[in-house]
Amino acid sequence: SRHIDWSPLMAEKGGYKHFMLKEIFEQPRAVRDTITGRLLEEQGDVFLEDMKLADEELKSVDRVCIVACGTSWHSGLVGKFLIEEMCRIPTEVDIASEFRYRNPVITDKTLLVLISQSGETADTLAALREGKSRGAKNVAICNVVDSSIARESNGVIYTHAGPEIGVASTKAFVTQLVALYLFAIRFGQARGTIDIDRGRKMIADLVHSPSLVEDALKLDPQVEKVARTYMTARDFLYLGRGTSYPIALEGALKLKEISYIHAEGYPAGEMKHGPIALIDENMPVVVLVPKDRHYEKVVSNMEEVIARGGRVIAICTEGDEEVRAKAEVTLEIPPVPEDLLPLVLSVPLQLLAYHVAVLKGTDVDQPRNLAKSVTVE
Amino acid sequence: SRHIDWSPLMAEKGGYKHFMLKEIFEQPRAVRDTITGRLLEEQGDVFLEDMKLADEELKSVDRVCIVACGTSWHSGLVGKFLIEEMCRIPTEVDIASEFRYRNPVITDKTLLVLISQSGETADTLAALREGKSRGAKNVAICNVVDSSIARESNGVIYTHAGPEIGVASTKAFVTQLVALYLFAIRFGQARGTIDIDRGRKMIADLVHSPSLVEDALKLDPQVEKVARTYMTARDFLYLGRGTSYPIALEGALKLKEISYIHAEGYPAGEMKHGPIALIDENMPVVVLVPKDRHYEKVVSNMEEVIARGGRVIAICTEGDEEVRAKAEVTLEIPPVPEDLLPLVLSVPLQLLAYHVAVLKGTDVDQPRNLAKSVTVE
Repeated sequence: SRHIDWSPLMAEKGGYKHFMLKEIFEQPRAVRDTITGRLLEEQGDVFLEDMKLADEELKSVDRVCIVACGTSWHSGLVGKFLIEEMCRIPTEVDIASEFRYRNPVITDKTLLVLISQSGETADTLAALREGKSRGAKNVAICNVVDSSIARESNGVIYTHAGPEIGVASTKAFVTQLVALYLFAIRFGQARGTIDIDRGRKMIADLVHSPSLVEDALKLDPQVEKVARTYMTARDFLYLGRGTSYPIALEGALKLKEISYIHAEGYPAGEMKHGPIALIDENMPVVVLVPKDRHYEKVVSNMEEVIARGGRVIAICTEGDEEVRAKAEVTLEIPPVPEDLLPLVLSVPLQLLAYHVAVLKGTDVDQPRNLAKSVTVE
Repeated sequence: SRHIDWSPLMAEKGGYKHFMLKEIFEQPRAVRDTITGRLLEEQGDVFLEDMKLADEELKSVDRVCIVACGTSWHSGLVGKFLIEEMCRIPTEVDIASEFRYRNPVITDKTLLVLISQSGETADTLAALREGKSRGAKNVAICNVVDSSIARESNGVIYTHAGPEIGVASTKAFVTQLVALYLFAIRFGQARGTIDIDRGRKMIADLVHSPSLVEDALKLDPQVEKVARTYMTARDFLYLGRGTSYPIALEGALKLKEISYIHAEGYPAGEMKHGPIALIDENMPVVVLVPKDRHYEKVVSNMEEVIARGGRVIAICTEGDEEVRAKAEVTLEIPPVPEDLLPLVLSVPLQLLAYHVAVLKGTDVDQPRNLAKSVTVE
């Protein structure tokens, strides 16, 4: 029998081989903690204690700018969909290092939403200061209490992911999505663009979300097999439409960060405008093709990839025979309300990056060249 | 002596080996034709006959949405900078295949700017129809007269690039930049955000721009040498900040399209948030580091890449000793007014993609899997 050596570090990892894997598996708990105490189920509304934006202020907003870096920028891209859909207010998402040098158009009716796990990201903090100096309202989404961005912003929505040790963010990202979902409900209620029934439905979905994430984690052994099949590929593409596009970007970033494979995310509809030239029989293409409003179009994009010899790993909805028949392999998630798809789709992509990295023998929790929080500009 | 066989096709190529090279070298003429007859030098204003948006309409706009695909989306990203800077109006840039399924926030005060070389891009046409049905004002930037998008939009700004045969767009892209520059001046004058002196200065710069593009073309033999050195690389990164970020995206797309090398563009400030993990001694990194407001920050990003073993090809301003001392190789452009940098920086990147593709023996004018205009969704 094998001897298992429990070092103190291993103990902190709760028996998991890496912090990253532990943190991936903590996600149902992290999601639950982020919604706990914040739902007003009867009213179909949400309570965000530290947000500090009164209904009158929320009503006066005429434009939202979400500003972030890296993984947090990806959650911001999902946030744009949620806020525009639920609140009917123009929402722009910008990369902090671009925003701050852009001489951005900002007024006192602009609401800045700053997203940063650590709350110390230098460019995001600078963007907050720039926005404040121009009179913008602002709110931060942070995981670390009393961090610089949390302190300097007018209000905060804390994610309750708990400490994240792995450099590649997982549970912090998923709880950012939850925080944006909560914010969009609150914002929509204040503006009168969501009625009680819709609010109740959304809250009911959210209550159910930890168990959806839990179900997605059951894919782990299958994802490990997929990782074995494709781990030697030098390049990957990740494709999605709608909210699945930022999730494709995030999936590609995870693989880049910890396995050093050149993975790139693309909106599936852009393939024909250039990147499809890259496709040959050496290129695994991860296609996010859940049953949602984009389904038919994404199936058609998937077929184009297959016609050019690309090897499709499809993340689809349980029991999708059409996709099963076409893709080289499928990873199937449970049926999920469309707004919550980003949460659930993230899980197999995190696991895929993790297992590929482990098989390649890289330093998963401390990848080369990367720091957990980027506090220099 | 070598026998030169002038086929009829060669003749159409004007002695160039490929349409793409011919079109790259036509750019000074294409830029000149796009500005000719449109400049009101005394008034510091611009005359756009087919735009059909009166000053009153331009004044009533409260938000601009630029919608496009592929290369045209990249010119749109530059357009955002120009319009926000000169007109102080929030400008969003969206990918057509995303925009149309987004349930976008649009009012009769929204100005849609549709960009398409062919004027037949299916997703962009659908986005125009969607926007019109919601009451948006609209104007198209097209190269093909009487194309579907030109006909269905309320007004057009034609680029006068002439027919573009190479699938990888070059002169159409550069003239789109010119059209956006003209539009931003006109828009700024209508809104009173540009005064006569500023308009005159911008017009004077524009008059000078064909000769700046001409100067950049003189880099051709040097670029060919660089292509020989790096042609065997499997992956490339392209980095820039500000308007150089979309030019980095466009440079990477050119290389993808015709050489099938996995090239990716990134905003330089995002490197530390993940992609720097990819950097090793096999990774050529094209850094756009002209003398502009971002210079110091980009030099610092370049140093990070070098510290991790990356091989830097720097596109910098003539005589920049600091960059010369640090980069593995430099391609140096003449000093250029900051607003016109995108035009000039595009040239060496087009040439680099071209020469790498020729050296690799791909079908430059008709790359695999790609069509000149994407008329299906």
